[in-house]
Amino acid sequence: MSGATRILFAAKPETRDAYRAHLPAALAEAEVAARIVAPEDDFDPAGIDWIVYGPSPAAALSDFAPYVNLKGCLSLWAGVEGIEGNRTLTAPLARMVDQGLTQGMVEWVTGHVLRHHLGMDAHIVNPDRRWTPGAPPLAHDRSVAVLGLGVLGTAAARALSGVGFDVTGWSRSAKDIDGVRALHGADGLEIAIRAAEIVVLLLPHTRSTEELMNADRFALMRPGAVLINPGRGALVEEDALLDALEGGLGHATLDTFRTEPLPRDHPFWAHPKVTVTPHIASATRPASAARVIAENVRRGEAGLPLLHLVDRSEALA
Amino acid sequence: MSGATRILFAAKPETRDAYRAHLPAALAEAEVAARIVAPEDDFDPAGIDWIVYGPSPAAALSDFAPYVNLKGCLSLWAGVEGIEGNRTLTAPLARMVDQGLTQGMVEWVTGHVLRHHLGMDAHIVNPDRRWTPGAPPLAHDRSVAVLGLGVLGTAAARALSGVGFDVTGWSRSAKDIDGVRALHGADGLEIAIRAAEIVVLLLPHTRSTEELMNADRFALMRPGAVLINPGRGALVEEDALLDALEGGLGHATLDTFRTEPLPRDHPFWAHPKVTVTPHIASATRPASAARVIAENVRRGEAGLPLLHLVDRSEALA
Repeated sequence: MSGATRILFAAKPETRDAYRAHLPAALAEAEVAARIVAPEDDFDPAGIDWIVYGPSPAAALSDFAPYVNLKGCLSLWAGVEGIEGNRTLTAPLARMVDQGLTQGMVEWVTGHVLRHHLGMDAHIVNPDRRWTPGAPPLAHDRSVAVLGLGVLGTAAARALSGVGFDVTGWSRSAKDIDGVRALHGADGLEIAIRAAEIVVLLLPHTRSTEELMNADRFALMRPGAVLINPGRGALVEEDALLDALEGGLGHATLDTFRTEPLPRDHPFWAHPKVTVTPHIASATRPASAARVIAENVRRGEAGLPLLHLVDRSEALA
Repeated sequence: MSGATRILFAAKPETRDAYRAHLPAALAEAEVAARIVAPEDDFDPAGIDWIVYGPSPAAALSDFAPYVNLKGCLSLWAGVEGIEGNRTLTAPLARMVDQGLTQGMVEWVTGHVLRHHLGMDAHIVNPDRRWTPGAPPLAHDRSVAVLGLGVLGTAAARALSGVGFDVTGWSRSAKDIDGVRALHGADGLEIAIRAAEIVVLLLPHTRSTEELMNADRFALMRPGAVLINPGRGALVEEDALLDALEGGLGHATLDTFRTEPLPRDHPFWAHPKVTVTPHIASATRPASAARVIAENVRRGEAGLPLLHLVDRSEALA
């Protein structure tokens, strides 16, 4: 196998199992001669060209210093907060931008926004057999804010606009998205939160987004408004959310948490105004994700810039 | 007011109240000089040019014979089964095709299809605090059949295709819709039902669609499949549906029923595999519907063909 590029698949066994068929097939399709190395194999770190990285408490790779010839670290996930601040990693870091993951996120967000828009819960659970006609407003009269306009936020905002919602997007820097009122900066954030009946969090977890949704920001939300968080658990100050729900906040639908699985004694579980989903909104789909990994290896080996590079300036500042 | 066309607004008082501001405004916008007459007014039927028709048990207008100069009957609803077979009505009958109604239907259908696709109910009601990750398949791997490709069915099929679903549509006669596998005829119906994981009924109620979903058709459905009926209650044989739910049918989400409101002792209410919504999917929105009525009056008065004419050949055969 001399001449083949060497890829360390640094992820837990279940993850590697899920990619067992897909990654070699995708590398072959990209015409990349590669040898895939497992963490438990006997190998020389200096001989590793690429690391495919899937974070897990058990299989954490924390010291990249021995990988002196590393060409790049390719994350299996969109969120890279577990690795982007790691100073021992000096090779380029690419996040996963998987069409399957993006599409799955769009479906989850569109579904849960429509669920709240249509008031479905009152029909799904209706022990009193209440028959109360009265259609909801149309989507164009329902204002939705999407905070975060990266790949996922932009795709979600576009899809919600396509369904007909009145969509405001917000990002740190100015963006321009068809059919979406795009705001930015601190003033824009306040405007976006104040106006929305449904707020969707799709920001990355950085130092500036840590507990972005705190008591002050919840105080901006409209009475009865809904928070939907498929982004990162750390974007929300949990106690402030619980306080807001005691006040006028209508509901919170949460897919991501500080600790996962969400501990059985966590107050979110039994709260009548909270829906917990088990971190399913942003699942990477191995078939399509393997093609993204293979394409980046192909590009790197051909001297081309990697796709989906992470800007680590804030994380390493 | 001589010279003004006379419109009898034959609907119950609540309906007329909802249109009180919108209909005169829409007629003025269409530059139609009109006088609106209420059923309780003292008027000569021979002087009525148009009837705006909203069915209701209390305010039913059943004998159109005295309206000898009637130019047309304009339904406030998409479904016209209460009137299309009435032989005393010889003037043209137009159904309501309201952008607001269509959009509302699309939102309701998209929302409930996504709800079942994503398996939301298991998260909305989760007393055992089950954390079971495992994302659903992507929409393009979820087959949805839309039975009926009129205005509403076509709009719903297009929207579901836009979200990414694998959509098959079925109608009596052949249709061609971008992004939708359109089938027709008896063979096509069987293929559509057999293939689908989610079946949406958007057929009109006619003699040939009466109890279309009977025991034989339920037997074609895939184990675990879901029936969604925002069309007409009469499309479904209720006992056959209950039997199918005892068998392999996964769920039924129903917005329309033989008797509405659904009687409190009806078995659908307490059935764990049935969701009842109170006929909200196809609500006409007065602001946009009034413009459709006004446009048809304008066209009729100008000698132009009416929009949304009902083909009554089957109903009167």
